[in-house]
Amino acid sequence: MATAVANFAQLFNNAILTRASLPGKHGGNKGFRPCRHRQIAPHSPIDRSLKEYAMTTEIEERLAALGIELPSPGKPGANYVPFVVTGNLVFVSGQVPMAPDGVKFVGKVGKDFSMEEGQQAARLCAINILGMLKAAVGGDLDKIARIVKVVGFVNAVPDFTDVHKVINGASDLITDVLGDHVGKHSRSAIGMGTLPLGVAVEVEAVAEIL
Amino acid sequence: MATAVANFAQLFNNAILTRASLPGKHGGNKGFRPCRHRQIAPHSPIDRSLKEYAMTTEIEERLAALGIELPSPGKPGANYVPFVVTGNLVFVSGQVPMAPDGVKFVGKVGKDFSMEEGQQAARLCAINILGMLKAAVGGDLDKIARIVKVVGFVNAVPDFTDVHKVINGASDLITDVLGDHVGKHSRSAIGMGTLPLGVAVEVEAVAEIL
Amino acid sequence: MATAVANFAQLFNNAILTRASLPGKHGGNKGFRPCRHRQIAPHSPIDRSLKEYAMTTEIEERLAALGIELPSPGKPGANYVPFVVTGNLVFVSGQVPMAPDGVKFVGKVGKDFSMEEGQQAARLCAINILGMLKAAVGGDLDKIARIVKVVGFVNAVPDFTDVHKVINGASDLITDVLGDHVGKHSRSAIGMGTLPLGVAVEVEAVAEIL
Repeated sequence: MATAVANFAQLFNNAILTRASLPGKHGGNKGFRPCRHRQIAPHSPIDRSLKEYAMTTEIEERLAALGIELPSPGKPGANYVPFVVTGNLVFVSGQVPMAPDGVKFVGKVGKDFSMEEGQQAARLCAINILGMLKAAVGGDLDKIARIVKVVGFVNAVPDFTDVHKVINGASDLITDVLGDHVGKHSRSAIGMGTLPLGVAVEVEAVAEIL
Repeated sequence: MATAVANFAQLFNNAILTRASLPGKHGGNKGFRPCRHRQIAPHSPIDRSLKEYAMTTEIEERLAALGIELPSPGKPGANYVPFVVTGNLVFVSGQVPMAPDGVKFVGKVGKDFSMEEGQQAARLCAINILGMLKAAVGGDLDKIARIVKVVGFVNAVPDFTDVHKVINGASDLITDVLGDHVGKHSRSAIGMGTLPLGVAVEVEAVAEIL
Repeated sequence: MATAVANFAQLFNNAILTRASLPGKHGGNKGFRPCRHRQIAPHSPIDRSLKEYAMTTEIEERLAALGIELPSPGKPGANYVPFVVTGNLVFVSGQVPMAPDGVKFVGKVGKDFSMEEGQQAARLCAINILGMLKAAVGGDLDKIARIVKVVGFVNAVPDFTDVHKVINGASDLITDVLGDHVGKHSRSAIGMGTLPLGVAVEVEAVAEIL
């Protein structure tokens, strides 16, 4: 039975990968992601397990294809926490470009880093945002209903004006992983005088969860 | 019948314009805006249509009197959207001083622009905030229940200290258009190192909608 | 009867003060704060009045022990308000280091003020945040269910990198007063180009209330 499930899931994934290359990939067949909302009952327990497997795999497969492993929240270094859930909203603390082996991108965009490097810093912040969100939903990324808001802070020299392009590095990563429907967010991109640890970018987010 | 409605609405509007010139204009007669909340049943279908017409007209008339035409959301230039609705909250993306013929107020307050010019930039950002909110409520501005929060970002030189006065340009516009009861908001005004496109001001908002 | 209540409350308070000096002070005895959530029925009216007295006193005692008197919201100086309540969320306006006798800490961290002085400025901002929240819940600080989010803005020179340590001054005060369970929040700490009135720190917050 496990094999049958895996085979079905494989078919689902192939379909997903094919569909992912088409424009408007999520709009065409609403039945394809049928249990996004809890109130929609699946047809049978087997049906449900197949679909849940496929759904989870969809986002996890995208992460794997991008070579991304989401971090878990670390020990808080002060009197705050990585995220707070209130109702069905999650407020995620500002994330810096922290990698498993330490902080990256220390310096200012427009002096120490190019716009493209700033985008990579923003992308790393966004990976950390997704890691915190994964923890907030107990590990099931399909319980992220919508990224509501992203604020991107760019530590830049005063005459740097491509602040929004830097934050596209975060917006692109979030949308690539979660898809347009869930991932596209409202956003503010702003240029800072400085940031904690002197990092080039910091990103915070609000998300709606199921 | 349409004529009768229009005539009644005209009377309503005249009354509104008269009242609008008085201090404390919304506090005096609670009965004047009786169907702000959905649970209050109107007395009859005709009564309702009159009141709804009048309410819509009240805000639209103020916009017309101020010579303001609210913009519609443009095509998003990246993987984000102008606003996201979650529950009865709308999170509006940071708005820059974009006019129909292009971006305005490129430069820094305290160097390229005076405080008063910064206020004009903030006012233009706020007009764009209202445009996004109008789209979020399907065109009916009376469905904006409350402006919950405004954050105003001022691209200023480091020794500029009238950051809050610049953002008054946004707060005043919002309150002038929506009235004190709906328009007055919690607020943060902060001075930035830089902003997207080098604009002088950016404004974001959260609103509660019906 | 009032005397008996006061005596019991005194015992409660002594217990609280003893417990407050221990690590992990709120984790040990869940029964000690039994009516945080309204749905938990107390055993009797007398029991309830004792507990409510004790709970209110717990936070107020901590404030007294810290020598803190929370301010009331002042008259708004422009078209905004100190806070807006929407649903069970309160959005508090950015608070500057305003003391009863005027604004303090005017200048930049890293030039005019040390990191430690910046922390004192952040602490004063946080006291003002708690004052606004107290007003938002009608004076009963036990109706603050959770500090959801804090954003700390530090007016610093461009090469100052201890932005997060400055904002610890706000996070520590909030947690010291409200306790870990209610007080610990999601957070962003960011370095600004400038701030209103030229103050060193500004802090805004979102809280969930009962």
